[in-house]
Amino acid sequence: MRILITGGDGFCGWPTALYLSRRGHDIAVLDSGIRREWDRELGSDSLVPIASLDERTETWKTYAGGSFVAYHVDMRDYDGLARTVGEFGPDAIVHFAEQRSAPYSMIDRDHAVFTQTNNVVGTLNLLYVMKEIAPDCHLIKLGTMGEYGTPNIDIEEGYITISYKGRVDTLPYPKQPPSMYHLSKVHDSHNIMFACRTWRLRATDLNQGVVYGVQTEETRLDPRLANRMDYDQVFGTALNRFCVQAAASHPLTVYGAGGQTRGFINIQDTVRCIEIAALHPAEPGEFRVFNQFTEEFSVHDLAARVQAVAATMDIRAELRHVPNPRVESEQHYYHAAHTRLLELGLTPHLLRDATIREIIEMAQEHQTRIRLHTIMPTVTWA
Amino acid sequence: MRILITGGDGFCGWPTALYLSRRGHDIAVLDSGIRREWDRELGSDSLVPIASLDERTETWKTYAGGSFVAYHVDMRDYDGLARTVGEFGPDAIVHFAEQRSAPYSMIDRDHAVFTQTNNVVGTLNLLYVMKEIAPDCHLIKLGTMGEYGTPNIDIEEGYITISYKGRVDTLPYPKQPPSMYHLSKVHDSHNIMFACRTWRLRATDLNQGVVYGVQTEETRLDPRLANRMDYDQVFGTALNRFCVQAAASHPLTVYGAGGQTRGFINIQDTVRCIEIAALHPAEPGEFRVFNQFTEEFSVHDLAARVQAVAATMDIRAELRHVPNPRVESEQHYYHAAHTRLLELGLTPHLLRDATIREIIEMAQEHQTRIRLHTIMPTVTWA
Repeated sequence: MRILITGGDGFCGWPTALYLSRRGHDIAVLDSGIRREWDRELGSDSLVPIASLDERTETWKTYAGGSFVAYHVDMRDYDGLARTVGEFGPDAIVHFAEQRSAPYSMIDRDHAVFTQTNNVVGTLNLLYVMKEIAPDCHLIKLGTMGEYGTPNIDIEEGYITISYKGRVDTLPYPKQPPSMYHLSKVHDSHNIMFACRTWRLRATDLNQGVVYGVQTEETRLDPRLANRMDYDQVFGTALNRFCVQAAASHPLTVYGAGGQTRGFINIQDTVRCIEIAALHPAEPGEFRVFNQFTEEFSVHDLAARVQAVAATMDIRAELRHVPNPRVESEQHYYHAAHTRLLELGLTPHLLRDATIREIIEMAQEHQTRIRLHTIMPTVTWA
Repeated sequence: MRILITGGDGFCGWPTALYLSRRGHDIAVLDSGIRREWDRELGSDSLVPIASLDERTETWKTYAGGSFVAYHVDMRDYDGLARTVGEFGPDAIVHFAEQRSAPYSMIDRDHAVFTQTNNVVGTLNLLYVMKEIAPDCHLIKLGTMGEYGTPNIDIEEGYITISYKGRVDTLPYPKQPPSMYHLSKVHDSHNIMFACRTWRLRATDLNQGVVYGVQTEETRLDPRLANRMDYDQVFGTALNRFCVQAAASHPLTVYGAGGQTRGFINIQDTVRCIEIAALHPAEPGEFRVFNQFTEEFSVHDLAARVQAVAATMDIRAELRHVPNPRVESEQHYYHAAHTRLLELGLTPHLLRDATIREIIEMAQEHQTRIRLHTIMPTVTWA
């Protein structure tokens, strides 16, 4: 297949591009490079040094299973996006190219407005490009499990069948997103659903859980192919951040009581889920939603697990409950369906102690690069 | 009360400003004037000649019950908006200032992106202004019944209590908006709900039906106070457009089969609903939704009713089913709750033949201004 990966220079996009390329697909990566600018803005940096997109691309070409090309384009630039799609002619477009940090979106008004306009306009542009020049192309869009919030009933995959006052309908699952970022994803979902219904486009919305792990078989082939690793308060996510904290002898920072339960997924499964979605496209007019995670953990339990693995490595990791910078429930019901990707063939990598150990070891290897002052939360929802 | 009305130069905003002013409230109107620019862009114009905002404001001052002032500010200009709110110090902000036409949003990509960014960013700016300098102010936001789409179960007011797999929760009502414009309102609703939950702001979302009628007691006081009247394919809405078509001996254009059923409201009730919401504010942290309409009609039945009234005026109005430019169901279940405003004291003006006759007469009075070429639908959803 010919697959365009937008945001292909990022944490999920880059390993996905390499995985699909090695599996023989023709790959184009599109990226504006803005993720690297946010690091400069925030004074943060990937723990693992990463090569430029052009150097990565050149390095990869010797391993690629099909053609492999990179486009430096911003999704907000409709003409650039249309040119890229027209030139490459993808069968599927995997759309990662969004601002993906909840804390970044909550820094202030400017960052909230930027996040929503960047994400919504980028996706609108893509929908119009597809409508105009690639109506049969399959859109694979990265959403987030966070769109659902924490309802007191089971979370289903995108839709829920409601029996109400003697009548029945299957409707979009109600969303209660907990940040300006998560809101932008809900806006996207509504826009894409409309485009499928109205223009008969085909789309799969992947509501992904929190991704952990860093490298994949492909990114390990050469240091210039290494994937980025975020551990700062803005872009770092729960498990990876705890591992870096352990390696740095920094307390593991659990926000509030830590009862917040979320879905998690290994990055090795992320890349496989994308291929599964691509190989089994949605039908014309179909807006399909898969919940893309493999296990549920509470934040406290994850931290305790990292603490236990660290102990076997002679690291005494302290578990510290810090005031929750977010407005969210710290004890709540959580039960979310995630069967559709399994039905299509996903065999999950469940979280093993060896995985945690490996992430801690990677952090130890790059210990001198850890910027301790970027770890503690300063961005609050207040 | 001190009430700021954004979009106060528009079809709903202007009569609301006058009504509330006459009832003794201190009123500030904020408007960028952009609605009048869209007329120039589209080659359309209000059937009823309207004075400039400054002339309207000057004229009104002799009738005003409290202070009355106009600000020329665009909601996308955060600093201008913050200055206005800071200077005026409102108890309530009635937010009409959005691009409100579904066809306008569907003209092309530029108009879709404009509609969503204009509406979403304007509302985000307002939420941040309230958070920063007016946290106790009550936001009264104009939404639309169109947000709900046409589900096969009863439509409730903003929320629905769902019993599911042995558990129960009250969740935001699922939305299926039918245009880029309606989508922008759904995005707003999610953003406002988040702001109420997270920042303890107070808001009422008024999901308004299709508004008919033109003048109110106040706008009739002086020709310089007259309200605008839209009948073109882009900004004209069902009943008003049919009345102008009858007056112009133009066929009444029913889109498709005409079975599309919607909620309708007389503009005299719109202005009263706004005051009712203002006098009974939401609680801090509350995001409250009222469905603001009084009757349901199918488009075909409305056209037939206009045809019948026209016949009593010796006008032979032809009813013409034109290909539906929109992608929507033309036969569907529709039953929507609208009790909350009634409970707070609204006594509806239900649609009478006399009202239809009055609108037709107004159209006859300005018959020479009717631009026939702006009536037939050319903007399609395809």
